[in-house]
Amino acid sequence: MINTKTGELLLLLICFSLISNTVISERPSTCPADDLDGGCGFHDSGEWEGEFFPGIPKIKYEGPSSKNPLAYKWYNANEEILGKKMKDWMRFSVAFWHTFRGTGGDPFGAATKMWPWEDGSNSLAMAKRRMRANFEFLEKLGVDRWCFHDRDIAPDGRTLEESNANLDEIVALAKELQGTKIRPLWGTAQLFLHPRYMHGGATSPQIGVYAYAAAQVKKAIEVTHYLGGENYVFWGGREGYQTLLNTDMERELDHMARFFEAAVAYKKKIGFNGTLLIEPKPQEPTKHQYDWDAATTANFLRKYGLIGEFKLNIECNHATLSGHSCHHELETARINGLLGNIDANTGDPQIGWDTDQFLMDISEATLVMLSVIKNGGLSPGGFNFDAKLRRESIDVEDLFIAHVAGMDTLARGLRNAAKLVEDGSLDELVRKRYQSFDTELGALIEAGNADFDLLEKRAMEWGEPQVPSGKQELAEMIFQSAM
Amino acid sequence: MINTKTGELLLLLICFSLISNTVISERPSTCPADDLDGGCGFHDSGEWEGEFFPGIPKIKYEGPSSKNPLAYKWYNANEEILGKKMKDWMRFSVAFWHTFRGTGGDPFGAATKMWPWEDGSNSLAMAKRRMRANFEFLEKLGVDRWCFHDRDIAPDGRTLEESNANLDEIVALAKELQGTKIRPLWGTAQLFLHPRYMHGGATSPQIGVYAYAAAQVKKAIEVTHYLGGENYVFWGGREGYQTLLNTDMERELDHMARFFEAAVAYKKKIGFNGTLLIEPKPQEPTKHQYDWDAATTANFLRKYGLIGEFKLNIECNHATLSGHSCHHELETARINGLLGNIDANTGDPQIGWDTDQFLMDISEATLVMLSVIKNGGLSPGGFNFDAKLRRESIDVEDLFIAHVAGMDTLARGLRNAAKLVEDGSLDELVRKRYQSFDTELGALIEAGNADFDLLEKRAMEWGEPQVPSGKQELAEMIFQSAM
Amino acid sequence: MINTKTGELLLLLICFSLISNTVISERPSTCPADDLDGGCGFHDSGEWEGEFFPGIPKIKYEGPSSKNPLAYKWYNANEEILGKKMKDWMRFSVAFWHTFRGTGGDPFGAATKMWPWEDGSNSLAMAKRRMRANFEFLEKLGVDRWCFHDRDIAPDGRTLEESNANLDEIVALAKELQGTKIRPLWGTAQLFLHPRYMHGGATSPQIGVYAYAAAQVKKAIEVTHYLGGENYVFWGGREGYQTLLNTDMERELDHMARFFEAAVAYKKKIGFNGTLLIEPKPQEPTKHQYDWDAATTANFLRKYGLIGEFKLNIECNHATLSGHSCHHELETARINGLLGNIDANTGDPQIGWDTDQFLMDISEATLVMLSVIKNGGLSPGGFNFDAKLRRESIDVEDLFIAHVAGMDTLARGLRNAAKLVEDGSLDELVRKRYQSFDTELGALIEAGNADFDLLEKRAMEWGEPQVPSGKQELAEMIFQSAM
Amino acid sequence: MINTKTGELLLLLICFSLISNTVISERPSTCPADDLDGGCGFHDSGEWEGEFFPGIPKIKYEGPSSKNPLAYKWYNANEEILGKKMKDWMRFSVAFWHTFRGTGGDPFGAATKMWPWEDGSNSLAMAKRRMRANFEFLEKLGVDRWCFHDRDIAPDGRTLEESNANLDEIVALAKELQGTKIRPLWGTAQLFLHPRYMHGGATSPQIGVYAYAAAQVKKAIEVTHYLGGENYVFWGGREGYQTLLNTDMERELDHMARFFEAAVAYKKKIGFNGTLLIEPKPQEPTKHQYDWDAATTANFLRKYGLIGEFKLNIECNHATLSGHSCHHELETARINGLLGNIDANTGDPQIGWDTDQFLMDISEATLVMLSVIKNGGLSPGGFNFDAKLRRESIDVEDLFIAHVAGMDTLARGLRNAAKLVEDGSLDELVRKRYQSFDTELGALIEAGNADFDLLEKRAMEWGEPQVPSGKQELAEMIFQSAM
Repeated sequence: MINTKTGELLLLLICFSLISNTVISERPSTCPADDLDGGCGFHDSGEWEGEFFPGIPKIKYEGPSSKNPLAYKWYNANEEILGKKMKDWMRFSVAFWHTFRGTGGDPFGAATKMWPWEDGSNSLAMAKRRMRANFEFLEKLGVDRWCFHDRDIAPDGRTLEESNANLDEIVALAKELQGTKIRPLWGTAQLFLHPRYMHGGATSPQIGVYAYAAAQVKKAIEVTHYLGGENYVFWGGREGYQTLLNTDMERELDHMARFFEAAVAYKKKIGFNGTLLIEPKPQEPTKHQYDWDAATTANFLRKYGLIGEFKLNIECNHATLSGHSCHHELETARINGLLGNIDANTGDPQIGWDTDQFLMDISEATLVMLSVIKNGGLSPGGFNFDAKLRRESIDVEDLFIAHVAGMDTLARGLRNAAKLVEDGSLDELVRKRYQSFDTELGALIEAGNADFDLLEKRAMEWGEPQVPSGKQELAEMIFQSAM
Repeated sequence: MINTKTGELLLLLICFSLISNTVISERPSTCPADDLDGGCGFHDSGEWEGEFFPGIPKIKYEGPSSKNPLAYKWYNANEEILGKKMKDWMRFSVAFWHTFRGTGGDPFGAATKMWPWEDGSNSLAMAKRRMRANFEFLEKLGVDRWCFHDRDIAPDGRTLEESNANLDEIVALAKELQGTKIRPLWGTAQLFLHPRYMHGGATSPQIGVYAYAAAQVKKAIEVTHYLGGENYVFWGGREGYQTLLNTDMERELDHMARFFEAAVAYKKKIGFNGTLLIEPKPQEPTKHQYDWDAATTANFLRKYGLIGEFKLNIECNHATLSGHSCHHELETARINGLLGNIDANTGDPQIGWDTDQFLMDISEATLVMLSVIKNGGLSPGGFNFDAKLRRESIDVEDLFIAHVAGMDTLARGLRNAAKLVEDGSLDELVRKRYQSFDTELGALIEAGNADFDLLEKRAMEWGEPQVPSGKQELAEMIFQSAM
Repeated sequence: MINTKTGELLLLLICFSLISNTVISERPSTCPADDLDGGCGFHDSGEWEGEFFPGIPKIKYEGPSSKNPLAYKWYNANEEILGKKMKDWMRFSVAFWHTFRGTGGDPFGAATKMWPWEDGSNSLAMAKRRMRANFEFLEKLGVDRWCFHDRDIAPDGRTLEESNANLDEIVALAKELQGTKIRPLWGTAQLFLHPRYMHGGATSPQIGVYAYAAAQVKKAIEVTHYLGGENYVFWGGREGYQTLLNTDMERELDHMARFFEAAVAYKKKIGFNGTLLIEPKPQEPTKHQYDWDAATTANFLRKYGLIGEFKLNIECNHATLSGHSCHHELETARINGLLGNIDANTGDPQIGWDTDQFLMDISEATLVMLSVIKNGGLSPGGFNFDAKLRRESIDVEDLFIAHVAGMDTLARGLRNAAKLVEDGSLDELVRKRYQSFDTELGALIEAGNADFDLLEKRAMEWGEPQVPSGKQELAEMIFQSAM
Repeated sequence: MINTKTGELLLLLICFSLISNTVISERPSTCPADDLDGGCGFHDSGEWEGEFFPGIPKIKYEGPSSKNPLAYKWYNANEEILGKKMKDWMRFSVAFWHTFRGTGGDPFGAATKMWPWEDGSNSLAMAKRRMRANFEFLEKLGVDRWCFHDRDIAPDGRTLEESNANLDEIVALAKELQGTKIRPLWGTAQLFLHPRYMHGGATSPQIGVYAYAAAQVKKAIEVTHYLGGENYVFWGGREGYQTLLNTDMERELDHMARFFEAAVAYKKKIGFNGTLLIEPKPQEPTKHQYDWDAATTANFLRKYGLIGEFKLNIECNHATLSGHSCHHELETARINGLLGNIDANTGDPQIGWDTDQFLMDISEATLVMLSVIKNGGLSPGGFNFDAKLRRESIDVEDLFIAHVAGMDTLARGLRNAAKLVEDGSLDELVRKRYQSFDTELGALIEAGNADFDLLEKRAMEWGEPQVPSGKQELAEMIFQSAM
């Protein structure tokens, strides 16, 4: 039993997460061994001199013929596509955790990365330095939004109060660095890393954990609101089960619903108008996660009367892990009125876990953008790059190359999707398929006024119905011609 | 375009489905070639002399030590388990289609089976003979229920009227053969075999197909009602899509909802009190089937206000194809108030399509029965053997061996589950995990009266929460000890 | 037990396969019901008047800006790419079975297609008419190669002798129609459709089936040779097991090796110089197929001393079913010296069975062509379109649209791959990664002359090795820039 | 680029791996924070007082009716089954890494466990204390074998020399603690945790890493030999690729072969007679691992002439990840003469990554033991428990419960398999299936003396072959009756 009554133990824990979040690199400016005096490494490593990314210029649009890895070939922020600027379609956001806390660790391997500005500690000073790096990164990339978990921007404290104080200090700096242009696309609370959440947060069988999770979410909503965040996300990585043998699934789902209700009430109480988003994922780390996919989450929201209060944050890699195409999940969310945000990444079709790769597939990006266009854009949501460098990509420039390639892929998807929309032949193919319902009987059916007696009567009058070709290959040919 | 205005074409079609439903065997009493004169094979093949299963005795319970393949070792129909007779827990049903229309054909191979009573035709006389075989099979097996699709018990006609007339004639015989003891567990309409349904029935883009499907379901509900059926099932094998590129998913789902509404209205109109069941399946034959899994189907029912009118028919093989354990799907259905019936079969964990094997795994059967016990049984639902002989199992006795083994497996599952319930230690392990909620604050939370302010206050008072071991291995040890 | 001693039964069987190979369409010129007199449908349906594809022109290259579905936008047969004509890189072939015998049947549905030239019979006359349609199709498509199974071009007879005679008659016609330009890319024997092969051909536990399979393959090699076929393929769809419980896997694999040895001997005996190809597939129809993937097949060939006598026919859909990318299987075959031919198709990444779709993904096609270029082309192998129209694609023009789109996709892949090769930066990235082995010690290691003592010595001298970034995102960016 | 020329950096790394290997628990006897002075925590934590597992008795056999979680119900070490003692069939081994270095960390969560004897450091003293705990664990469990990676028993040093010295010191203690009864089942080198191995060891594109890996394996073979180990294992967790775009697969495989050749030579040089084992795994951590499955590894060994020098260590969880049943992989290894050892664990059939759960399924265990019996046992190999407690199982007693349940499951599998062997009806069913080959022609075929001419002659004489039922359901019924 984890019985951590004393501060020492919590301290120990903080030390652990510090290290597991730390990285290795060529020339760490400070040896962590030196940092670890006085309570596991909280010392002020001081201000960073000069740029964090000294060799990297501001990324510019150079057009498709450019061979420069550090230039956009397809993303031209202010260019208009279908009557809207590209940047307003995309609303790109950088994920703080992958970009600044990713270490390259995996279940079989230690960290491979320690960026030059890291000092090996998890101190407040280090957190501030890292935050400054984040804003330089955003600036150089030309991106106006960022996303964060509470615990990846500020260190855990000995107590909840201390953690909150740490968070306040960092958030104040972030607010200052944001200036007038930059905002969080969304914030969230990290309810999965700490061992207290091993059985879940809102669905933990331990009431103390439930209360703790509530307190943490409360604070995270507050700081998201304070920073002008446009959305708040729930990813329930531990809200699920490892085995049904030890689980009361019904009671856990009831608790989760109560938790969400309380979050809605609190959001309203403090005047936070951002969208609450749930991010479905089928499994990993749990065997079964309650927010399995878009439809499962929608069922939960409907069952508990929460359907109007939440939207979904669809992640492409989570979609494919649940057995669906990303396009399917986006469309399912959209037609349930729930498409709120997209975690732009991709998985490997032969791999059964979350690889969180940068989306590099143009066809996939085109399908994604077709859904976004049908949705009239995502605002106040956007595209968050929930994508990480491969473990073996350890150069600072890899951070830029990956984001540039990911943004270009989606931008190219937008251009292709616009071509399809403007060409119109794919839409026309679909419209024609259903035109037999654009009739009097069709109207009756769609209004719920065609009973079985009437339908049988018609069926007998008509005899064997005519059934045309589905024209799938033609549809694929048209789609492909826009690539 | 399928434009079958003439009777000849429909006739052709009937001929096709006849043959694809036919089988090969040692000594067919009649050569189909001879049958095909005068309209593609409708001739009266006359009464069958004597028993259909001459060497097979009535299957008896002989107990676990028996080595007789044609005896029950674990299923003892009238023995009481947890206060109820085994037969009342199980409510077994034989699936007409697998048992009497299964030919062993697969995507790469022709039929391998032609039972001795088959004459190679799809005539009404053959349909009657087959129905008699069905009742002898039920009698010898000691099973009181059966399930059917309209088109597998009676041949398609040249017109809907003729098909209905064929169905009436066969159903009248079935009614007579049923006597007072035997009833359909459920009936259903086959909306997937005929090419008219290639784009779906209720979700076909062709209004004529929608109407035709409605007429067919109308009739199928009528005959199920007439036969005293206790449930009616919808399996939407073609209600889905092959590609989103040519599909208006939202419109199709709206149509499906209108279709179900009309079915509910019609059921009430004719006084059919049986349960309407939807059988989820993720895919196959379509790339995506709208009734993907229990949660997806529940979301659909809730979205369209149909939640009180339907329950689910959970099939274990469909569960695993959707990425869930069968136990998960049963529990999801149960806690959504939707567990109505079980299609008792199993898939192969390494195979990505529906194998519909007889369930032979005792652990799996025990998990299934734990859910059934928690549900207080399945009545008016039951266990339908939606399982087929392997393609290579071509002896008549294989039909009996498979059913006996499948029934024994579930019976053994019931005995094991009862042992676990009576022992109580697994339940106790679960109860203890959640006992921190059996408190004052727990009650507040579960009543929706604990807001984030209160919870934060408690979290700060309590400090770091205690988190006990999940005891998964102990739970597995206890579970296993009951095998 | 299948005990088909009499001619009647075999006749029956022929009738079945006829029907299961038959299709439904708008205006069949002849009602099959009329054909079935005199022995289940062998009548001469006479010559077809005029063109089989009357509205379809010869497909021409019109370039990327064309919107004409019946024109090539990327495949320009005589254009040179990397010093070779496109047609010589591609060596396209039409699969007779999918194109001319595909009916749209699936495990849950009847045939949906009956092309206008079909008369509903499986007669020799019909087989000839179909063969003529095949050559018109090849001509209009501008493709010089075709592939066939013995039983899909000519009907099964009452006896093996009769089947052989049927085959001879059709093959003589094909020879004539081929003229000087057209040849089979490969031929093969269909050892999976007939129920006699339900337990396998070469691996059947029944010696009579083994002998029958040998006789059938003998004949199929002969006719492939006669037609000037450049390769002969073995796809062992039934060579595997459904359950290990009833299987002696070792004995079956021994039999398979003996069978292959005999095939090699026979090929040499008759002077057939074409390549023998094995086509791996992991499963379906069997639970486990012995030629699981490229590596498994290579192990089999090596174990039994057959490695020099066979190459592989890699199918992309089979690759992904076995858990690999198509590119992986091609590369595995290539570096084992076994890349002989490609079955050009694709599966659906979310589907667990063989969908045999036309490859429409440009990135995938580019990866495929990179392997082909590295292999110096595929000759005497080529690309066979082992791809079928979707069940719902029932227009004659769909056959052309699908082939045109599939050929264009691969042609575009070739153009992209050539761009990558000519650009050189991807090759350079790879070369640099390994350059530390282009050294003295590297040469020692690669020659097998660096023992552990030497290596330890160097490791200690060198201290901690330097490990550069893997640059995966950069590689993906470069790859994508060629799309 | 990782350019760690200085000792400081290596020190840093050691600190990292220390922490990532550390755990959290109720009452750590020493606060790690105190340990971290003077160089990241290497201090001597002194001897442990008293027992490591004070409340845990020596585990005894109490028979199936026992409800004691800390007693064997099925494993009775000295009981004879099929003429051999149970302990000699099983040859159980405890995996040091899972049991003593497992922390409960996962890709989304920090460590959850810190056993009471852990002091938070990775010092030599701690390594010794842990080794003593290991031997008390073995003693209490009644198990005579253990398995280890070099780096999990002794801490990494600043240099290879220092690492080797650390290892020597720990190994000397282990040798002493082993006494006369206990031996390593096998040892291995950990070539995956350290970032230097991020691109592989034997297949790293960096020659320095190749040399370093060789030096590490050299030492690991030496200490395994010194400790009397019976086998030596290669698990190439990083020997594979993340993307083919940056990989020269052929050159990497050549390097791997050279590496294995050098290992064989070194083993012989020092007189180590243990078996060299390769452990296949399809993927994770890499996208593709070169030792994908048994057949792939066999192909590699044959291609490079290494087939006689290695056997395989089959892990059930790896088997299912590669798309095979565990039974299939065992049989494939067996009939290739390669079945050397079994990593006894299981995965979750719905999970796409390695869960390394304790095998609790009795049917699965029975299939495993059927292969072991056919193999005449595994000696000098055995069963290593490559299984870990669930992350949420944090009680010390859970370690015992899990091992007891896992051992009992396999013991029960052995008893069931013996029942099947003694009953004989399953073997008889298989023998009969193939009896048509126990004939003159069968002998000719199996000797390679039946050419296609002879076989065709027989096929024509015999006519249509008889094909009996595969009796799969009967086989399953027989199998199940032994459970």
